[in-house]
Amino acid sequence: MMTLAKVPAVADIDTADVPWELECRLARLNQRYVRCLDAKKLDEWPAFFAENGLYRIYPRENLEAGLPASLLYLEGHAMMRDRVLCLREVILYAEIAVRHLLGAPAIRDEGGGIYNVATNVLVVHSDSEGHSQIFCAGEYRDRVEDRGGRLRFLEKTVVVDTFTVPSHLSHPI
Amino acid sequence: MMTLAKVPAVADIDTADVPWELECRLARLNQRYVRCLDAKKLDEWPAFFAENGLYRIYPRENLEAGLPASLLYLEGHAMMRDRVLCLREVILYAEIAVRHLLGAPAIRDEGGGIYNVATNVLVVHSDSEGHSQIFCAGEYRDRVEDRGGRLRFLEKTVVVDTFTVPSHLSHPI
Amino acid sequence: MMTLAKVPAVADIDTADVPWELECRLARLNQRYVRCLDAKKLDEWPAFFAENGLYRIYPRENLEAGLPASLLYLEGHAMMRDRVLCLREVILYAEIAVRHLLGAPAIRDEGGGIYNVATNVLVVHSDSEGHSQIFCAGEYRDRVEDRGGRLRFLEKTVVVDTFTVPSHLSHPI
Repeated sequence: MMTLAKVPAVADIDTADVPWELECRLARLNQRYVRCLDAKKLDEWPAFFAENGLYRIYPRENLEAGLPASLLYLEGHAMMRDRVLCLREVILYAEIAVRHLLGAPAIRDEGGGIYNVATNVLVVHSDSEGHSQIFCAGEYRDRVEDRGGRLRFLEKTVVVDTFTVPSHLSHPI
Repeated sequence: MMTLAKVPAVADIDTADVPWELECRLARLNQRYVRCLDAKKLDEWPAFFAENGLYRIYPRENLEAGLPASLLYLEGHAMMRDRVLCLREVILYAEIAVRHLLGAPAIRDEGGGIYNVATNVLVVHSDSEGHSQIFCAGEYRDRVEDRGGRLRFLEKTVVVDTFTVPSHLSHPI
Repeated sequence: MMTLAKVPAVADIDTADVPWELECRLARLNQRYVRCLDAKKLDEWPAFFAENGLYRIYPRENLEAGLPASLLYLEGHAMMRDRVLCLREVILYAEIAVRHLLGAPAIRDEGGGIYNVATNVLVVHSDSEGHSQIFCAGEYRDRVEDRGGRLRFLEKTVVVDTFTVPSHLSHPI
């Protein structure tokens, strides 16, 4: 299990020496990831993670204060699939259009085919009446494994600056 | 004329096998397109389309329900130029600063030098008093033709999640 | 000192003939720049500029009307460092999470290893209560110098469409 201390801070990450091709591949991973979420194809969501991958959502303040309390903590495909099954019954979410916009990734080579990647993320929700608003501003802090040319998340920590309706936070960001 | 059924869903689009150079070229097309709109150079807008190109704006709900009603439907350069001439008289628009932000494109090769491209888009408007707000969240679903190295829209369908002041929607997004 | 007339308008900038590698390098410059600001590492901020570099923030309306009044004007590393020292005492800023999102750069080769670069920018602030809102929509209009493979801003003009709480504008955007 990853510890909180392993979450890389953006300030630690330096992209300067990362080959351009690698940056593109890592950027594409999160681009496909957010496209999956915007299309609400939640069945495909766990496959972005390694079998024992970790997904968690942290309020920024908790992370900065070193507090371990997360808003959501899922470890491994089985827990992720269970969560996805629950979410099918949430009617409200079905009526909301979701759009993720990403910044460019900051990358650090951890060695052994593992990369730390930090990416700004903005999520805009539009309700069934056609009103759009910022649902969440924050950041992905990922540990990505490159195994046999396939990239998967060993860990995806979503640091959220926005604390919105808790029921919505039960959905992957 | 394109039929509604031909609008590709994001979920159908797979970028995995698209050469990187092609992705860059297609991304640049929409980047230039939104720069043209942000600079309000509407005279140059029709040239992004093929001579008989199609431009339309759909509310997301209509598209999902299979309803054909669009908010705006323009076919061919002549109709587009007429629309641009009308817009010169809309004073309100001149006072609004427009900024488009794009996601990364999802691409499917349709064959014959034609590509389906889906791109998230966020449009922010700032009024003359300096207040900024989300004008529109949505998506471009494009059919792009590559002829002689020049990329043009055979069809650009703007799927809008946001239903805002109708007078503004008369402007290209 | 740069004159206002030297600020390139977006409409003048054409990226068509810019080599892809150069576009990537110039995009990375602003990506690192905004990462520095989001991480609030203001001590590192002046190093993005040439020794006598110019930083200024213009309201869009002043720029369009040809008025020279800027909201902030800093010339050279010494002035920038002084500003950063002042900002350490602003408590309010420390409690706000900042996220910059960038558009793709429009580039014009000015010759002599100097490039004009225009980039859309959206800044989202989240306060300590977890509310997020658009702090600023606007544009970077940069003159970038490539010396010995290192890119630095000779001039960064931030054109802001949004006129928000003045105290916040004292911080670099």
